[in-house]
Amino acid sequence: MNFELSKEQLMIKKMVKDFAENVIQPRAIEIDKEAKFPIDIFDQLGELGILGIPFPEEYGGSGGDTLSYALAVEEIGSVCGSTGLSYAAAVSLGASPIYYFGTEKQKKAFLTPLAQGKALGSFGLTEPNAGSDAGGTKTTAKLEGDEYIINGEKCFITNASFAKTLIVTAVTGKNEKGKNIISAIIVPTDTKGVKITSNYDKMGVRGSDTAEIVLDQVRVPKENLLGDPEKGFKQFLYTLDGGRISIAALGVGIAQASLEKALNYAKERKQFGQSISNFQSIQFKLADMAMEVELSRNMVHKAAWLKDNDKPFSKEAAYAKLFASETASRAANQAIQIHGGYGYMREYEVERYLRDAKLLEIGEGTSEIQRLVIARQLGC
Amino acid sequence: MNFELSKEQLMIKKMVKDFAENVIQPRAIEIDKEAKFPIDIFDQLGELGILGIPFPEEYGGSGGDTLSYALAVEEIGSVCGSTGLSYAAAVSLGASPIYYFGTEKQKKAFLTPLAQGKALGSFGLTEPNAGSDAGGTKTTAKLEGDEYIINGEKCFITNASFAKTLIVTAVTGKNEKGKNIISAIIVPTDTKGVKITSNYDKMGVRGSDTAEIVLDQVRVPKENLLGDPEKGFKQFLYTLDGGRISIAALGVGIAQASLEKALNYAKERKQFGQSISNFQSIQFKLADMAMEVELSRNMVHKAAWLKDNDKPFSKEAAYAKLFASETASRAANQAIQIHGGYGYMREYEVERYLRDAKLLEIGEGTSEIQRLVIARQLGC
Amino acid sequence: MNFELSKEQLMIKKMVKDFAENVIQPRAIEIDKEAKFPIDIFDQLGELGILGIPFPEEYGGSGGDTLSYALAVEEIGSVCGSTGLSYAAAVSLGASPIYYFGTEKQKKAFLTPLAQGKALGSFGLTEPNAGSDAGGTKTTAKLEGDEYIINGEKCFITNASFAKTLIVTAVTGKNEKGKNIISAIIVPTDTKGVKITSNYDKMGVRGSDTAEIVLDQVRVPKENLLGDPEKGFKQFLYTLDGGRISIAALGVGIAQASLEKALNYAKERKQFGQSISNFQSIQFKLADMAMEVELSRNMVHKAAWLKDNDKPFSKEAAYAKLFASETASRAANQAIQIHGGYGYMREYEVERYLRDAKLLEIGEGTSEIQRLVIARQLGC
Amino acid sequence: MNFELSKEQLMIKKMVKDFAENVIQPRAIEIDKEAKFPIDIFDQLGELGILGIPFPEEYGGSGGDTLSYALAVEEIGSVCGSTGLSYAAAVSLGASPIYYFGTEKQKKAFLTPLAQGKALGSFGLTEPNAGSDAGGTKTTAKLEGDEYIINGEKCFITNASFAKTLIVTAVTGKNEKGKNIISAIIVPTDTKGVKITSNYDKMGVRGSDTAEIVLDQVRVPKENLLGDPEKGFKQFLYTLDGGRISIAALGVGIAQASLEKALNYAKERKQFGQSISNFQSIQFKLADMAMEVELSRNMVHKAAWLKDNDKPFSKEAAYAKLFASETASRAANQAIQIHGGYGYMREYEVERYLRDAKLLEIGEGTSEIQRLVIARQLGC
Repeated sequence: MNFELSKEQLMIKKMVKDFAENVIQPRAIEIDKEAKFPIDIFDQLGELGILGIPFPEEYGGSGGDTLSYALAVEEIGSVCGSTGLSYAAAVSLGASPIYYFGTEKQKKAFLTPLAQGKALGSFGLTEPNAGSDAGGTKTTAKLEGDEYIINGEKCFITNASFAKTLIVTAVTGKNEKGKNIISAIIVPTDTKGVKITSNYDKMGVRGSDTAEIVLDQVRVPKENLLGDPEKGFKQFLYTLDGGRISIAALGVGIAQASLEKALNYAKERKQFGQSISNFQSIQFKLADMAMEVELSRNMVHKAAWLKDNDKPFSKEAAYAKLFASETASRAANQAIQIHGGYGYMREYEVERYLRDAKLLEIGEGTSEIQRLVIARQLGC
Repeated sequence: MNFELSKEQLMIKKMVKDFAENVIQPRAIEIDKEAKFPIDIFDQLGELGILGIPFPEEYGGSGGDTLSYALAVEEIGSVCGSTGLSYAAAVSLGASPIYYFGTEKQKKAFLTPLAQGKALGSFGLTEPNAGSDAGGTKTTAKLEGDEYIINGEKCFITNASFAKTLIVTAVTGKNEKGKNIISAIIVPTDTKGVKITSNYDKMGVRGSDTAEIVLDQVRVPKENLLGDPEKGFKQFLYTLDGGRISIAALGVGIAQASLEKALNYAKERKQFGQSISNFQSIQFKLADMAMEVELSRNMVHKAAWLKDNDKPFSKEAAYAKLFASETASRAANQAIQIHGGYGYMREYEVERYLRDAKLLEIGEGTSEIQRLVIARQLGC
Repeated sequence: MNFELSKEQLMIKKMVKDFAENVIQPRAIEIDKEAKFPIDIFDQLGELGILGIPFPEEYGGSGGDTLSYALAVEEIGSVCGSTGLSYAAAVSLGASPIYYFGTEKQKKAFLTPLAQGKALGSFGLTEPNAGSDAGGTKTTAKLEGDEYIINGEKCFITNASFAKTLIVTAVTGKNEKGKNIISAIIVPTDTKGVKITSNYDKMGVRGSDTAEIVLDQVRVPKENLLGDPEKGFKQFLYTLDGGRISIAALGVGIAQASLEKALNYAKERKQFGQSISNFQSIQFKLADMAMEVELSRNMVHKAAWLKDNDKPFSKEAAYAKLFASETASRAANQAIQIHGGYGYMREYEVERYLRDAKLLEIGEGTSEIQRLVIARQLGC
Repeated sequence: MNFELSKEQLMIKKMVKDFAENVIQPRAIEIDKEAKFPIDIFDQLGELGILGIPFPEEYGGSGGDTLSYALAVEEIGSVCGSTGLSYAAAVSLGASPIYYFGTEKQKKAFLTPLAQGKALGSFGLTEPNAGSDAGGTKTTAKLEGDEYIINGEKCFITNASFAKTLIVTAVTGKNEKGKNIISAIIVPTDTKGVKITSNYDKMGVRGSDTAEIVLDQVRVPKENLLGDPEKGFKQFLYTLDGGRISIAALGVGIAQASLEKALNYAKERKQFGQSISNFQSIQFKLADMAMEVELSRNMVHKAAWLKDNDKPFSKEAAYAKLFASETASRAANQAIQIHGGYGYMREYEVERYLRDAKLLEIGEGTSEIQRLVIARQLGC
């Protein structure tokens, strides 16, 4: 065993941390307040190669691994949940499926600009009446000649308003048992019939873009079909497994930031003639927060390492996502308590951490869905 | 024993509920969104006698009891935390101390307009460097001839920008042991030197007014001193005890609303071909929420009943405040989970419940302070 | 509303408390250690009328109410979980169904000795393959002439080895929809074919008697059928609802005892030069314990009051049972922590509280079943 | 990073697992029931080299590392908490300090028989009035000529009745600041004046030996002083840090066993016509248990790896101990609930897991002490 990051991983971590602290942190309150997607930050992330971390250089990536990517998500997430989520979605959901399942041609055409950070990607899975129930997909893609004609509605899509490509899941037919075949198709967002609306008034991650999309007679070439059409369901489960690692990393970032803010405040704040960090009740909260941050981070690292080493990681990704997201909420919650009245104010940031953290318990499979995923893995 | 509300109590409850549902509920999202204190609603609350519930008719009140008042807070709080908090603060903190400790003349002059709802009251206790540590009060009130000259800073004051009167705590001298005597003084907010600033950007209860106040050479007649000057500390502890019942009632309101929204949504929302209310994981959450609402409400009723019957209620008020506020946060949190992605959106209201509920774990003594209060009552 | 016990209730509470402290407490450790049912204590409980509290004098009872009975259970339970459980089962399960559903003749014959404490009663519902699933009852009672012939197996039956009567549930036929009709029948335990075995090696409540019973061609007169045969299922649900109040009261007793022991120990135990009750971490535990005891007790009182006033109480009994039993476990658990190493030793009693409390989360419907019961009441 | 065990580690794990399952498991219920230390099992552990895992071959050890040792503790603990605790105490507390701090001569004389499994070691730190407060040590060791004369009382000492050596902490003088110097001294248990009493009636780990020791004018040669006398306090903090890893490993073992038993039972047990493992409420419990086992195990591995690589591990050992012990209690608790009534019976073993697990939250620093240790490491 070895619990140390490699030099390359440490370097990437440091680079992203510097960028996060210098460029993103100063704008984090404003990004939340104005609920405006910080597109210029993504330009810079692209230039620095951060959007391409887990992709090979031949497709415009930086040639890093999942673990490096998770470190980057943690660092960004620790200063700004909105940017962290947008980044994680762009890489894990918008770009990765093309890397995992795309043909060489698709990778060159669609992955490269995403990995280079010249464009953003998005992923449309959820539908209004099929949240956790991906099998209930109603969007259809009918093959007519050389084109798929896609009709349907997708919701809760991160980055879609700013994305160049959208990967949608759609029913493309029925298998021999009469069950729907769900496939994934790459849809350039400037295709006719793609209507993007973005009007969610969210509790947190307010600077991230979340859109609804209506697909109305959208026509894309049949070679935009992504991966094995019969295995569409399996493919997006794999994609979600990977995405969960990034959501978990985001949780670690928010939890770590909550811990640091709370610890610093507790050391400085005086009440009853002493630092409140002297009080056992505060110390116990900080101890639990620190412990859970460590447990979460170890789990993220392990899940990422398993993925990087082509070992099964679905269960571990669910562990990481479930625990880290709940850790983030708990940590943010306690950070508010430690700050007292000030913790309730936007200026002190910890209340934003709680609002942002809450998303992590919902997105890419709620905590309840994670528990079902784990139970299934246990053979229930 | 008897666990039934009286006819009068049920009547008040129904009246407030109707008003809350018809007048406040339709504006609750907007009140939060625009972060604007709904002054017109308070005019109506005044006209209906709701602001005077726990005060005798001779002082403009409605002649009800603490329990009726708690029912009113619950009903208002169940539709709008901002309005609920502003109401609770106006009655428990702005008006009640004058009723508890005021002279006949003070009651006629200052309580009557508050009880009639012609004006709002506020209460300034907390200071920037003395949150939970009321003994650390730095504001001073020096007697010069017939006037007190008050200097200091107060923070986190609910309603102050809209209040006609402000009760401030200030050091008026030293007792024989050399310890500061902290007294309460009624300050009309239009007195020269009272500077009210209100610029908190809060996580929740955004429609409630929260102000900082600077008192700069503020002169008030010495007969504005409220109650026994030597017992100022005891008096505001009593005031806080009473206030805690109302915060607890607010918690019950938010928790009840969370339960109802979640239950309705769970019955309607279909996933995997059935109502999600059929799933044990959802049922267990709802069961716990319902149980905790019931436990909280019983506790509020008991604390109010003890107060109404002149029995010690400090410990019970702390129990009620602590449990109901944590119940509200838990319930809102679970309501979000049950709603899935929609729960994260302002439109579905449950995310606001969580933001509003969080205040209840902080205001009028954080949960940590409640635990210390209880421990002291246990003889620790 | 009124939260005060009546004089009669206070008197009964005091009487039972005195008996519990003077007679049962000194033997509590030994009762647990030797795992021996304290039959002589039950003789005394009978003489004092404690076994007849909730039954009318005409049937040998003391003419009290459910609330008084709950107070008695709490007091006994606070010194000895084994005695408390045996008492609660004797009254709620062994005797009450005859009082609720029995004919005048059955009451005279079977209830009177139980209420007088001249005999103990027991109740056989659970079967090896039907724990929570009462509908899965396999025991049968066939009417042959004037007799029922009963065959089957029952398990986890409290008091059975010492009981004079056993009320068993059995399938007596099918209704028009073809579903099993489950009825209740009174079986004198000295009837031929009743084989009682008692060999459970239990975690706690070790001094209570828990038996398995085999019924092998047991013949009882058909007039031993209890209540409406078609409503057997409803009847034992009602019986269980009542029983839950007593289990909840037992939980309050154990939690109260845990609190008291922990509080006393914390005040006396010195570490780092002071009483450990000065440490916030200890204070917070004690505060939570005290709060939960109060919440549990209020809930028990309310459920009992509802039952005494012929109002629906099924949901409230489930709330009380669920919360009080989990409170008891948490309180005992924390009492051990506060005692440190000593808390792990039988001599200090708190470890027994935890072992005893655990039963309350299982018996008469596990905590999971309570949550389902509540969910059903909420309309899920 | 690398999350895989080495071949050697896997081999040791397998060897211990086989022994545990074949030799210890069949006797686990009896060991608990009879509360008898299984001395013969320790003879076999010795023969297999298991007692010498983390010690070099030159001192009779097997030349393994801390991680291998933690794996062994987990495996033994997963079948029998009593044996697991006795083993962990023998190695971490009885033998390790001699390895860490002993002179070459001491290692040859005292460590070798322990590492070879020809004798057991024990460690006396806690005193009746100094539980968590090691600085309050009252036992004294006065140098008279070439001998220390030791007087005092020690309590809660694992293995002492069967041990050949006892390492005691004692005050040997005062430093220049006038504070007590606490040193460690090796005392052969057959020395005159060493009185061992063993009469604790424990909640769990009943087959482990826990003794009180009175040291009455006990004389040992001054060369039995262990390590730097001025650093006695630091030394046993280091020893405890190491010991915490083993307690944590024991927690992982108990939690893992709870998970497995519960999972198997849930799959087999039918209620309402299906396996209870189909019910979400059961699945959610199992998922949380599995997640926490994984998190605990990762933390143990990391702490052990840090120690093996001479990096600071004090905080990580506290994280591991705190989380794994609480995980074990939670897991055992849920395993009981999943088993329903059967879970309460000794035969099904899970109730023993809970009783054994509870010790882990107390021994070698309660959970509360762990939180303080962590807080100190955070700079509070």
